[in-house]
Amino acid sequence: MAKELSVAIVGATGAVGSKMKEQLIKRNFPIKNIKFLASARSAGKDIEFNGQMYKIEEATPEAFEGVDVALFSAGGSVSAKLAPEAAKRGAVVIDNTSHFRMHEEVPLVVPEVNREDLKKHKGIIANPNCSTIQMVAALQPVREKFGLTRVIVSTYQAVSGSGVSAIEELREQSAQWDAGKNIEANILPAKSDKKHYPIARNVIPQIDVFTDNGFTYEEMKMINETKKILHMPELPVAATCVRVPVVSGHSESVYIEVEQDASVQDIFEVLRNAPGIVLQDDITSQDYPMPLFVEGEDPVYVGRIRQDLANKKGFHLWIVADNLLKGAALNSIQIAEAMLEDNLL
Amino acid sequence: MAKELSVAIVGATGAVGSKMKEQLIKRNFPIKNIKFLASARSAGKDIEFNGQMYKIEEATPEAFEGVDVALFSAGGSVSAKLAPEAAKRGAVVIDNTSHFRMHEEVPLVVPEVNREDLKKHKGIIANPNCSTIQMVAALQPVREKFGLTRVIVSTYQAVSGSGVSAIEELREQSAQWDAGKNIEANILPAKSDKKHYPIARNVIPQIDVFTDNGFTYEEMKMINETKKILHMPELPVAATCVRVPVVSGHSESVYIEVEQDASVQDIFEVLRNAPGIVLQDDITSQDYPMPLFVEGEDPVYVGRIRQDLANKKGFHLWIVADNLLKGAALNSIQIAEAMLEDNLL
Repeated sequence: MAKELSVAIVGATGAVGSKMKEQLIKRNFPIKNIKFLASARSAGKDIEFNGQMYKIEEATPEAFEGVDVALFSAGGSVSAKLAPEAAKRGAVVIDNTSHFRMHEEVPLVVPEVNREDLKKHKGIIANPNCSTIQMVAALQPVREKFGLTRVIVSTYQAVSGSGVSAIEELREQSAQWDAGKNIEANILPAKSDKKHYPIARNVIPQIDVFTDNGFTYEEMKMINETKKILHMPELPVAATCVRVPVVSGHSESVYIEVEQDASVQDIFEVLRNAPGIVLQDDITSQDYPMPLFVEGEDPVYVGRIRQDLANKKGFHLWIVADNLLKGAALNSIQIAEAMLEDNLL
Repeated sequence: MAKELSVAIVGATGAVGSKMKEQLIKRNFPIKNIKFLASARSAGKDIEFNGQMYKIEEATPEAFEGVDVALFSAGGSVSAKLAPEAAKRGAVVIDNTSHFRMHEEVPLVVPEVNREDLKKHKGIIANPNCSTIQMVAALQPVREKFGLTRVIVSTYQAVSGSGVSAIEELREQSAQWDAGKNIEANILPAKSDKKHYPIARNVIPQIDVFTDNGFTYEEMKMINETKKILHMPELPVAATCVRVPVVSGHSESVYIEVEQDASVQDIFEVLRNAPGIVLQDDITSQDYPMPLFVEGEDPVYVGRIRQDLANKKGFHLWIVADNLLKGAALNSIQIAEAMLEDNLL
């Protein structure tokens, strides 16, 4: 009989956490038992999973005793405190927050790209940033065949990346706008930052707070995580991250330069055969990916592939994926599945 | 007494045409008399201008007799047919459509950038594409001081660029979405194209129809017009044009490379003193341009200026302007004003 695992989810009521529950069920993850952990404030509440009711337990260090795999998605400070405690008790932590991503001893993994890195884990695996995952998943097959010397990305990111409250805020602002009322903003661009701006009928060129170099943390995540996942510390990567009034589905306008000569047909060919990628590129039938149509879908969609008109080693791509699925919950579960297959769990 | 002109507007009821009316009044353009021209179907209808009512006249070749300056914004086919007729009768045509923009003998002008080109006119001046105008207006001061060797832009374009019906469609789709109804799409991405997609809660990586090389016409307009306006036929320019659910205000994520060494402070300095530009860049107070806040404003706003982390001659900029004003109506009137000042009218 196949191995079954004891699973814990920390942060199961959030936008990503609830997708983790769905993915575990949808993908028939082999669960022996499951527990839901949260702060003392939420402990004792009921939560539904696969037709059964569970009591949310307080996320104490001891709660991880006997847990095989712990999925964390409750914010960086919770992971910082409890992920090491869980790991110390023998659980493998798959952490969806940014806290451990750049730690040298923590593998940062997109299974289609750098599955081998899982072998080096010391109890904690980091799930990359949503906008990073879909980009590296699409670039890896191109890089394997033609090399990669440069990446410049501008993003069009959905509000669900900022959590359930940001989705609610977009709905409320949209209704306020329709009714001709003043639009109120309390969440975006970053809940912890000083000023908030409407996202309805707007785009906001700030995701997460600013770093000293003028880039935002979101932009630096894309830059640093891409280099780490691809094992290319010297790769020139630049990112401009922008929030748009879309519920779910991040889109990316990506310019790359490759090492070897390649044609658009060559890029089509590698993406057509790449794991987890759907090539959606037929301009004669106006076929290209859009966020509204990828909600709830597993793959990373790539279209609008064009050779640069001035540089034959330059290519433009349009990459779209559901940021809560491949960008978060799905990739986390795929990490657990890969570890199971590779006898790391 | 200052010179006063006989003005004609072709297409005054459209999204751009109605802004042309507003700009003429707001800027005290010296009008001796004004007439409003349209197809036979609209002729005879009433139109208001500066508190007075006018009858719309049929746009026949003869209607341009005695007109000093004719502002066209009624579609490419109307301009193709009537602009030469107007010019033949001594009117200076300022054409907001794309029809004549790349004609060698037609100046394509953003007054802050290439005002000198107006002198070479042969009766028709072309107003550039909205997304091109704001980009070259912001890049010209940088280029004058530091040179320019490369441009890669990804746009976030408002629906008003597609006309009044697209604004209406976004409003309707938004209400449909709020009410949990099916979203109907009939206009975007391009009315003349086969398929239409919702713009509410979505972004569409297609503006105008596709050309054979995989780029859209909008993208090729940005590429070719930028080179023409800057008189840099060899400049490598690339564009990815994307429609977003914003009413008015185009945003652009622009990557440039310059020839001379420059710092972010140097770029700040040239933009702070550039005509028609507002530098809006203070990350400590989350100050950067956003489309919702530029509606109805004349300038081109620039922020989020960062030096590339891998290439010290690379810079990232975020450029926002009201696409109906500086992107269309305002630039057209500014062309007329410059011609008047330079004794070309």
